[in-house]
Amino acid sequence: MREFALIDRLKTRLASRRTDTRLGIGDDAALIAPAAGEELAITTDTLIAGRHFPSDTPAFDIGYKAIAVNLSDLAAMGADPAWVTLALAAPELDESWCDAFLDGACAAMGDDPIDIIGGDTTRGDLSITVTAIGRLPVGSALRRSGAQPGDVIAVTGTLGDAAHGLDCWDERAQANADETFCIERLARPRWRNGAALRALAHAAIDISDGLVADLGHVLAASGVGARVNVDALPVSPALAGCVDTAQMRACQLGGGDDYELCITLAPGDLERAQAALDCPLTVIGEVEAEAGLRLVDAAGRPFAWAGAAGWDHFPDA
Amino acid sequence: MREFALIDRLKTRLASRRTDTRLGIGDDAALIAPAAGEELAITTDTLIAGRHFPSDTPAFDIGYKAIAVNLSDLAAMGADPAWVTLALAAPELDESWCDAFLDGACAAMGDDPIDIIGGDTTRGDLSITVTAIGRLPVGSALRRSGAQPGDVIAVTGTLGDAAHGLDCWDERAQANADETFCIERLARPRWRNGAALRALAHAAIDISDGLVADLGHVLAASGVGARVNVDALPVSPALAGCVDTAQMRACQLGGGDDYELCITLAPGDLERAQAALDCPLTVIGEVEAEAGLRLVDAAGRPFAWAGAAGWDHFPDA
Repeated sequence: MREFALIDRLKTRLASRRTDTRLGIGDDAALIAPAAGEELAITTDTLIAGRHFPSDTPAFDIGYKAIAVNLSDLAAMGADPAWVTLALAAPELDESWCDAFLDGACAAMGDDPIDIIGGDTTRGDLSITVTAIGRLPVGSALRRSGAQPGDVIAVTGTLGDAAHGLDCWDERAQANADETFCIERLARPRWRNGAALRALAHAAIDISDGLVADLGHVLAASGVGARVNVDALPVSPALAGCVDTAQMRACQLGGGDDYELCITLAPGDLERAQAALDCPLTVIGEVEAEAGLRLVDAAGRPFAWAGAAGWDHFPDA
Repeated sequence: MREFALIDRLKTRLASRRTDTRLGIGDDAALIAPAAGEELAITTDTLIAGRHFPSDTPAFDIGYKAIAVNLSDLAAMGADPAWVTLALAAPELDESWCDAFLDGACAAMGDDPIDIIGGDTTRGDLSITVTAIGRLPVGSALRRSGAQPGDVIAVTGTLGDAAHGLDCWDERAQANADETFCIERLARPRWRNGAALRALAHAAIDISDGLVADLGHVLAASGVGARVNVDALPVSPALAGCVDTAQMRACQLGGGDDYELCITLAPGDLERAQAALDCPLTVIGEVEAEAGLRLVDAAGRPFAWAGAAGWDHFPDA
């Protein structure tokens, strides 16, 4: 498929869902018309084959994940996703591959009013850079820096599935139902409805590098510490059915790629936050004035964990 | 250099120049606050080593070009550039390489009030994806589709330099002054002040793929044709001093990478447009109702040119 044919394909397949999109793909730039009183949240993430997803990932899942991880960043700001641009580098543009890739991208957007307004395709090793733009009322963004001592810490959904899914990836043809659940969590992470938490959470982040690493970013930005009960970390029946407790804790504390939200909020707002979401929201600890992250078990005993403190793309440099 | 160290470096080096940037690099997303009555123009372009720039291009020039080509797209919409995000994939992050890369990026922004609000770094083959966001009054964008029969066609600056610069690249250590000029035009293309043409031009595009290809996009989008006098194409003394007439025409008609603007406008607005720019604006032809692009010489005779119709990243597919 030729480059301009792909752009035509994008234009044809992606009818605009938004009246504030004034011009989509096909000119030197797209045009959008933000409303008065709105701020825009803007994030950009690159996914590279063999690094952010296994090289043999199906095109559908690559398209899905490229969109989902960026929408998850918007969710972590409390923004309503509205627009994305999609820059694709690929060794070749096979028509069926592109269709599956776009099918996945559209599946990640679901029925939400999100427009793909920019596209760039070029020949190169497979990588995708998405920029996502979300809307939110002025001053309402959920920043990492808002955590306060006395806040409870809560996470959406379940933790650790995607990390185990990666462990199972190479043997996925023989995976049982529990393992398949974890693999699907890795391949097609769901982005959460962070916009629903806008007036409730004090701080938020999405868990892409692992709970310890990402909660650590919140604590550092807020100048606070925390105590987390590892026995309270939400676990899926699938993960609990696949691995022993030590492996489970490693996946929950250090595994990225679940794209759940980790938030802090006043204890009195917990029920409203739970009611605002279409997924579980589980309290896992509390924010404390003393710096540092203290992992404990249900009995309050220190929990020793020797995992890495986060994912760094250049750890050796 | 570790990934987070690079992000810290970006944050430290890039003090905000804009009061409508509410949050820069370092959270899940940046926050901007567009003014009422503004539309935003959004463009994204990926540059890949060995494809969009020679693999042995200095880091400064890579940073420069990644920013400049995106700002050029905004210029072609008539937008005032305001924000950019920068996604860098590199085999390793060497500190001096990163500094030079950022020096180049900053040089391309010049003194304009532009903020780098997002950054992503990952390990991979060298590629850079920039998303640029510009501001413009509602309804004032310069689209490709606005050309009208009777318009004159004009281009900024000079054409063909960068194409010859690429021809000279491998022997650049022995380049004479004229060749060095052309090489510098390739390495550090200047983006033009398209915002100054907002109330004047009917249609605009930036010349990244070659005049014939890019003017062709304008004609197709506008449903018109054109006559272009190849003897009127502006040429730099440097290019004229390096090559014969046949080579010169090939560079001017088919060479991309100059990032000059090609606009159409009413003949009566030409002088005002020329006065609004800080570079030459040269009339090269006129828009006609009859479809197709007719190349002629100064005497009006058809000019035969067998060059390719544009740059396609997937020509064989």
